[in-house]
Amino acid sequence: MSIALIVLAAGQGTRMNSDLPKVLHQIAGAPMLGHAIHAGMALEPARIVVVAGHGAEAVTKAAEDINPFAQVVLQEEQLGTGHAVDQARDILGGFDGDVVVLYGDTPFIQPETLQAMAEARAKNDLIVLGFVAAEPGRYGRLITQGDSLQAIVEYKDASPEERAVTLCNSGVIMGSASQVFDLIAQVDNNNASGEYYLTDIIAKGRESGLSATVVTCPEAETMGINTRAELAMAEAAFQARARAEALENGVTLTAPETVFFGHDTVIGRDTIVEPNVFFGPGVTVESGAHIRAFSHLEGCHVSNGAVVGPYARLRPGTELSANTRIGNFVETKNAILAEGAKVNHLSYIGDANVGEATNIGAGTITCNYDGVFKHRTEIGARAFIGSNTMLVAPVSVGDEAMTATGSVVTSNVPEGAMAVARARQENKPGLSRKLFDMLKKKKARQQKEAK
Amino acid sequence: MSIALIVLAAGQGTRMNSDLPKVLHQIAGAPMLGHAIHAGMALEPARIVVVAGHGAEAVTKAAEDINPFAQVVLQEEQLGTGHAVDQARDILGGFDGDVVVLYGDTPFIQPETLQAMAEARAKNDLIVLGFVAAEPGRYGRLITQGDSLQAIVEYKDASPEERAVTLCNSGVIMGSASQVFDLIAQVDNNNASGEYYLTDIIAKGRESGLSATVVTCPEAETMGINTRAELAMAEAAFQARARAEALENGVTLTAPETVFFGHDTVIGRDTIVEPNVFFGPGVTVESGAHIRAFSHLEGCHVSNGAVVGPYARLRPGTELSANTRIGNFVETKNAILAEGAKVNHLSYIGDANVGEATNIGAGTITCNYDGVFKHRTEIGARAFIGSNTMLVAPVSVGDEAMTATGSVVTSNVPEGAMAVARARQENKPGLSRKLFDMLKKKKARQQKEAK
Amino acid sequence: MSIALIVLAAGQGTRMNSDLPKVLHQIAGAPMLGHAIHAGMALEPARIVVVAGHGAEAVTKAAEDINPFAQVVLQEEQLGTGHAVDQARDILGGFDGDVVVLYGDTPFIQPETLQAMAEARAKNDLIVLGFVAAEPGRYGRLITQGDSLQAIVEYKDASPEERAVTLCNSGVIMGSASQVFDLIAQVDNNNASGEYYLTDIIAKGRESGLSATVVTCPEAETMGINTRAELAMAEAAFQARARAEALENGVTLTAPETVFFGHDTVIGRDTIVEPNVFFGPGVTVESGAHIRAFSHLEGCHVSNGAVVGPYARLRPGTELSANTRIGNFVETKNAILAEGAKVNHLSYIGDANVGEATNIGAGTITCNYDGVFKHRTEIGARAFIGSNTMLVAPVSVGDEAMTATGSVVTSNVPEGAMAVARARQENKPGLSRKLFDMLKKKKARQQKEAK
Repeated sequence: MSIALIVLAAGQGTRMNSDLPKVLHQIAGAPMLGHAIHAGMALEPARIVVVAGHGAEAVTKAAEDINPFAQVVLQEEQLGTGHAVDQARDILGGFDGDVVVLYGDTPFIQPETLQAMAEARAKNDLIVLGFVAAEPGRYGRLITQGDSLQAIVEYKDASPEERAVTLCNSGVIMGSASQVFDLIAQVDNNNASGEYYLTDIIAKGRESGLSATVVTCPEAETMGINTRAELAMAEAAFQARARAEALENGVTLTAPETVFFGHDTVIGRDTIVEPNVFFGPGVTVESGAHIRAFSHLEGCHVSNGAVVGPYARLRPGTELSANTRIGNFVETKNAILAEGAKVNHLSYIGDANVGEATNIGAGTITCNYDGVFKHRTEIGARAFIGSNTMLVAPVSVGDEAMTATGSVVTSNVPEGAMAVARARQENKPGLSRKLFDMLKKKKARQQKEAK
Repeated sequence: MSIALIVLAAGQGTRMNSDLPKVLHQIAGAPMLGHAIHAGMALEPARIVVVAGHGAEAVTKAAEDINPFAQVVLQEEQLGTGHAVDQARDILGGFDGDVVVLYGDTPFIQPETLQAMAEARAKNDLIVLGFVAAEPGRYGRLITQGDSLQAIVEYKDASPEERAVTLCNSGVIMGSASQVFDLIAQVDNNNASGEYYLTDIIAKGRESGLSATVVTCPEAETMGINTRAELAMAEAAFQARARAEALENGVTLTAPETVFFGHDTVIGRDTIVEPNVFFGPGVTVESGAHIRAFSHLEGCHVSNGAVVGPYARLRPGTELSANTRIGNFVETKNAILAEGAKVNHLSYIGDANVGEATNIGAGTITCNYDGVFKHRTEIGARAFIGSNTMLVAPVSVGDEAMTATGSVVTSNVPEGAMAVARARQENKPGLSRKLFDMLKKKKARQQKEAK
Repeated sequence: MSIALIVLAAGQGTRMNSDLPKVLHQIAGAPMLGHAIHAGMALEPARIVVVAGHGAEAVTKAAEDINPFAQVVLQEEQLGTGHAVDQARDILGGFDGDVVVLYGDTPFIQPETLQAMAEARAKNDLIVLGFVAAEPGRYGRLITQGDSLQAIVEYKDASPEERAVTLCNSGVIMGSASQVFDLIAQVDNNNASGEYYLTDIIAKGRESGLSATVVTCPEAETMGINTRAELAMAEAAFQARARAEALENGVTLTAPETVFFGHDTVIGRDTIVEPNVFFGPGVTVESGAHIRAFSHLEGCHVSNGAVVGPYARLRPGTELSANTRIGNFVETKNAILAEGAKVNHLSYIGDANVGEATNIGAGTITCNYDGVFKHRTEIGARAFIGSNTMLVAPVSVGDEAMTATGSVVTSNVPEGAMAVARARQENKPGLSRKLFDMLKKKKARQQKEAK
């Protein structure tokens, strides 16, 4: 059965107290909307429709970044979830499959859960995702008889018996596109909020003789985010799961609670991650690497045997081959380091290739920016870049070449050659003492005058 | 009614196991004494008297730093809280208002609580601050009848019925200066500790027909600090509250538990604070800024749209205008950056002005110290400071000027000019190979000899 | 009584999901095997025998690193704990004292516990270490009568009454070497696992009329590590204890939960440790030092009054004398700093001596590596190293000497002299504007062509 995701992402999120549309707030470096769409991808949807409203422009851009096939429709006024889904009617016109309604602020629905819903569709017209709430509070209750969902009752309309039910409504619904849109057309807004509720399609469907059932998932999956505090709790929940998975996969985390993973971080077995390491999006670390304390990685690949940090910052486009070494206070960006290359201290290596077994001295900088353009630096194998070498790109240093400490290298260095660009040292006897004396006398004079 | 704060700060704090007087240990970057005085400021006191004893010199200095109007009196011997308050009698001689007794090691009393005490004074002679203890243990019990405080009973003197009372004494007391000092004069030290207890004034007051009542506050406010472990717990309590408030105010904290606030940190709405950020005292961050991971800020101002870090250190006197950028391994101090200025990597910018849209290359250092004096560096707008430029202050670089990579700039650079101070590069063919060979042979020889 | 430790360290630790032998996974920077041996050292053992199996080569190397007197025997096949202990029979041939059997994956047994076992030996032949389990689950039960241990019953063989016993077997056993080996020889492997169990020697001993008793310890001491998650919990347990001890000893930890101690870290009273500090092995900090946020220390000594960080990295061999200062983004290694020396920013000081009250400017690097050899730098007292000085070792700078900013110092600088090695600054009027214009035009051209 062909599937269309409809992801509701129109809400302002007033309680977030933010100019940013709620669904664009991030968890593990990806917007909540991305988490929701990503979960839905497990169903291999033929169509993805995002219903935007507040901050529609930003949401549209984000949706396209997340998945170029996502289509965005606009809900001009926020008249309820039924109304929101209805905005997808035209763009899905005549779609001959199922729709699944997801929420851009409910980032933790798991692929397995959606697959269970898809399986339940074989025998039922409408599927509602429910959860057993620890504290059901004011959630809508799912009233069932055997496997059959009889009704969704809003808390305020519920009888004491119904309130005693702990099976609650997540809002996630699945059904055939034609039936869902037909039912939505029947929903009215005769209620206290004056809104069209998607949940009302269950009652309408039951009236029309359609079958409905409930698929359940752990309550944690249905966590919706309404405040920054809840966002922080969601981040914590994501991280807790990611940390547990890493441990399970044979990664050593010295202090798991201090390691932050991106939404797509992949780390191999027998890699050690010390305390206080931050993984942004797009990081893969192979087996047997060592990420030392206080390191920060984004958009990079780290190979077996590489040692990173402490205080290393790997920016996007960094490729560390096996047994490379990035030490403290070193930043890399768009930098490809061949096997065994070392950048141990206080350096910036950007837009560069570094050859096999090459050693980059402390304080080296690839000067990749001229104020307007960025340029590349090419360094060969087994080269030795002296401390505080400035490599003014575009420039190349050949295999087994050297640069003298403190050189500004503006033209290419042939292989095996030594580049020197510095002034001769001169020692001026006694000058230091003279200067100190002068300065100290001046200070004494000033202090005297100040009194 | 005019108010005098009396803040007891004479204790040694033996259990702190410290040479530092107890009240000078810090929470959120301010001494506990500062927190106590700061709370009392809500009453707009006409007088502030700090009773010092152990480490009186350091306490005196700190009190003056906290509030220049604070007066310090010395309690030579520690003969109890009543005796301590009595030391303020002379300096307040004839003070015609109320006194409030606070404690330098009880940093969390809230302004609202003190205001409630002040209001209760309208109808009562003496006000005692109480709290309902979760575990009353050995606290003094407040014995009340309706709104009237009958007595404060020490635990060891309490009957079983009195011990069952959970309303406990915080020690914070308010009353008219003349009555409080009169009552203290009546207190004796006929007790096991041989001390004059301030709490005894309630019994004396009741005997004299004065009315007394209790104002209550949450137990957490009355937390007193006696050990380093309790100090750490107090810090944690402060931070938990500050983090919750930031979230409430619309700040995104990716991992709230890893962010540390100063006692006076102010952060605007829609600012993002990534994990592991430390705010020392005196930091304000406007709305819509982004403080990245592992950053450390003290005494600075960060404007809208500025991006700071990761690994940025902003020291006191740093002023970041809108849309500035301070990148990794960058330290700033007494540095004013105009709109759009960028310092992206590995630099020290101290005692400097940086003009609008100026770009500071990696490895740049303002050499502000000559061993005795500090000097300023002035950089104009839209300038381009090449990587590894040394700006030997005092020095200026004009608008739209450039410095060549690796230059030591000792004299002013006019606007639009390019400053160059470097040696010409020379490539010595084959020299690198020759050197490597020589060194490797030497090593081989040494290894052979070592056998 | 002379004592031999037998430390079982042969297991693969399948659930660790690791190529590293289980006992070599680290807690607080030391392998678990090290913790186990270290605990046993409290008994001042005459002999230490480690029974290795999986990864025996690596375990052997580690054991020798931990204690050069440790002897390693190989258990070729893992046929049970009794069989493992039996591998020590030959190497201890005729050892005329007691043996204590410890486990390489049980790192938290305390010295006091082992001493209590040694004391109990005065009156008993065999001592078993037991603990009262909160959840006894499938642990073996210790069946006692008064002070006498009657039997160790495996869970699966236990009667309901026996299962109700909460006193459980830790596996740690003590007895005379001759008796223990005699008893092991009597143990068979007629059980479901086909293994020879060490615990069976108690039953054999009782049959032979030997006396046995139980010494108990807190359950936490007997924690065995089987997964990475348990390893992380063990690390957390170690850190929690170390943090509490530091607080108890009069160290201020602003945020104890963010400070990580090495297994042997020693910190003096009235030292302040800010959040996010990492202590690797071999660190001692005297009283009254200040370790600021985001610092990383290994194998170093920090004296009274020294201030370190934020973002300071002290590597092994760093010796900071009183009142020294290591600032942000500074790395030191094999570096001895005399009283009052300062390295405040962005420097690498390796293989160096720095004299009293010397100031090292920002961006200074000791160029200690020539690609093959490491060399030392010697800096005298009250010297002033200008910013961005490259000290090309071997090289020395005399007392009260200076180096000019940006100098590459390759030959020695006499005391009181000033070393200068730099090119003269030249300002080229208008050149910056011309370059900017050129680059911007080029960009505009490219952008036009791209359309």
